[in-house]
Amino acid sequence: MNYSNRIQRLQAVLRRRKVDAMLITQPENRRYLSGYTGVDHGIGETSGVLLIPAKGNIFLLTDFRYKIQAELDVNWAKVILYPRGLLKLLPQLLGDLGIKALAFESHYTLHATVEKMTGVLEKVGVRLTPLKGLVEEMRLIKDEEEIACIRRSVKLNEQVFAAVYPSICPGQTEIDVALSIESAMRQNGAEGPSFSSIIASGDRSALPHAVPSAMKVEKNRPLTVDMGLILDGYCSDMTRTFVPGKVDDRYLELHRLVRRAQLAGMQAIRAGARASDVDKAARMVIAAAGYGEFFGHALGHGVGLAVHEDPRLSSQNHKQLKAGMVVTVEPGIYIPGWGGIRLENMVVVQEDNCENLNSDTTWLDI
Amino acid sequence: MNYSNRIQRLQAVLRRRKVDAMLITQPENRRYLSGYTGVDHGIGETSGVLLIPAKGNIFLLTDFRYKIQAELDVNWAKVILYPRGLLKLLPQLLGDLGIKALAFESHYTLHATVEKMTGVLEKVGVRLTPLKGLVEEMRLIKDEEEIACIRRSVKLNEQVFAAVYPSICPGQTEIDVALSIESAMRQNGAEGPSFSSIIASGDRSALPHAVPSAMKVEKNRPLTVDMGLILDGYCSDMTRTFVPGKVDDRYLELHRLVRRAQLAGMQAIRAGARASDVDKAARMVIAAAGYGEFFGHALGHGVGLAVHEDPRLSSQNHKQLKAGMVVTVEPGIYIPGWGGIRLENMVVVQEDNCENLNSDTTWLDI
Repeated sequence: MNYSNRIQRLQAVLRRRKVDAMLITQPENRRYLSGYTGVDHGIGETSGVLLIPAKGNIFLLTDFRYKIQAELDVNWAKVILYPRGLLKLLPQLLGDLGIKALAFESHYTLHATVEKMTGVLEKVGVRLTPLKGLVEEMRLIKDEEEIACIRRSVKLNEQVFAAVYPSICPGQTEIDVALSIESAMRQNGAEGPSFSSIIASGDRSALPHAVPSAMKVEKNRPLTVDMGLILDGYCSDMTRTFVPGKVDDRYLELHRLVRRAQLAGMQAIRAGARASDVDKAARMVIAAAGYGEFFGHALGHGVGLAVHEDPRLSSQNHKQLKAGMVVTVEPGIYIPGWGGIRLENMVVVQEDNCENLNSDTTWLDI
Repeated sequence: MNYSNRIQRLQAVLRRRKVDAMLITQPENRRYLSGYTGVDHGIGETSGVLLIPAKGNIFLLTDFRYKIQAELDVNWAKVILYPRGLLKLLPQLLGDLGIKALAFESHYTLHATVEKMTGVLEKVGVRLTPLKGLVEEMRLIKDEEEIACIRRSVKLNEQVFAAVYPSICPGQTEIDVALSIESAMRQNGAEGPSFSSIIASGDRSALPHAVPSAMKVEKNRPLTVDMGLILDGYCSDMTRTFVPGKVDDRYLELHRLVRRAQLAGMQAIRAGARASDVDKAARMVIAAAGYGEFFGHALGHGVGLAVHEDPRLSSQNHKQLKAGMVVTVEPGIYIPGWGGIRLENMVVVQEDNCENLNSDTTWLDI
């Protein structure tokens, strides 16, 4: 990846915003700008922070536990350890670098942290400036190298699905299925799942975010498998719904309806189309058939270094799509007591249409 | 769990702090107060927020995707859905409830969220008050029911280790070992691992936070297995280091040194002891043998609903321990190029000593 180009673009923004440097705390932004693979344990336990001066070389600030990883991943930047926490390091370091105006990611810094940091930095004459979404803005449009990574992530995800699918059968628990999938991901080189796999059988398929349970996969009932993995930092995300056993007419009707909605959504995608119009194109298909109230979530979301990122394909996002964005298209119908059906592919937005990144066709056009 | 007692204790604090209500956003705090098991996807994607008025019944605010889970888990509270986000719901709801002073968890609310919320709520005359660590303070001391949960979590974790240990052998990859462990956890009823298992062989055992890799377990070299699970919400955390194959004198010497440090730490634990003194008791054993510089992290941390919580057993925490706290005791020695050894048990602080929650003795006193 061309990290130096990304850093230079961010540095140009910092100079326009009249700040001397910026702290990057959001983990995917940190990886996007530097390639550092350190893993945080939630927002409270970071594996490191980037300090990006408005000009010149960048710094990776981290602690003892991540030293070797940091020096391995980011050998072109200066790695500095903070044995007593970031706040004890900053006053001296910022002073040495002559940094007086320091920006921070206000959308990934806790309110209490800002209060504490303000107190410490005021004393040494450093002013804090909240900035929001600068790197996320850059991450919206994927370059060719990123799209190649996402393609490989999608392909491996499909290979894992294809390998596990034949063994899925009634009597297995949802947890069994999830474990087969997540083991196959990691044994085939994925860093891990990009989110906890959703394996939902029968009634439970009506829960869009079901956690796999000890319930057994039911014969002749819908089974939803929503899975994704991380490969070289980039995420994939795919959902298939199918019926182990006999398919009844109602299932067939609803499945075909969801698939038509998905195709309508995909057909509406092109550079310049509003995200809300794409959502609407799919939603109208389901609403026209009388199932509008059973499709309670947005049509899709961006995917990249994060599995859920902008742009959202929702009725509330009126921004235009741009070429190089990567989004999911995942309509669903969820009927309490009956079950649910969701079908999800990933696509790249292009000038005149979109490219479907998925080649898996299991139970799509039935 | 006695949720109503916990809520009443928090409500008493809110009244003392002169606020009309508090939003609880931190996921473990939310579970501690209500039992709600919804899973967040990072701080940016919550599965719901508790609204705790200073008096009376509480509310669980969430979205469509978590409705069924919320109503299942917290059927004694009022569940309210926000189809367009929390900020669109709050002005009306707070108005209806007569809430004018609203506290929020400043240590688990993003700076940007507070800015946005302030703008929206000012217009309807609601004042925001940052409060920090109130529920964490309550969670420090575990009641009997909680200790029983932690005991079961530790026991299951040991059973999983005992089941997997005999099959660990040179030639397996670190990932293979991690997968066997994490699969066994989930197949035996755990909600999942409490953190990504650390499986580090040979040189890599010198990385305290190694991510399992495709490297093979090496014969006659140290192998560190650091694993924990979540059962009924409560975490366990245990580390064993051992040598598949032949143990040499240096390993034996260092292993016994780490074990002596662990025992010294455990012997220093009692109600009233300062956390920093407990850290020191273990650290001095390692320093006296000349390995002080190779023990770069704190001796331990609290464990409960979160796998890493207060109190920290570190040189910087001078607070006194109290009976009912649950902490890890995990000294380690990490020598680049040679490898590392860490041994970790969990204990409950008691009036005059501590109770070791682990009964596993694999490779402890060798």
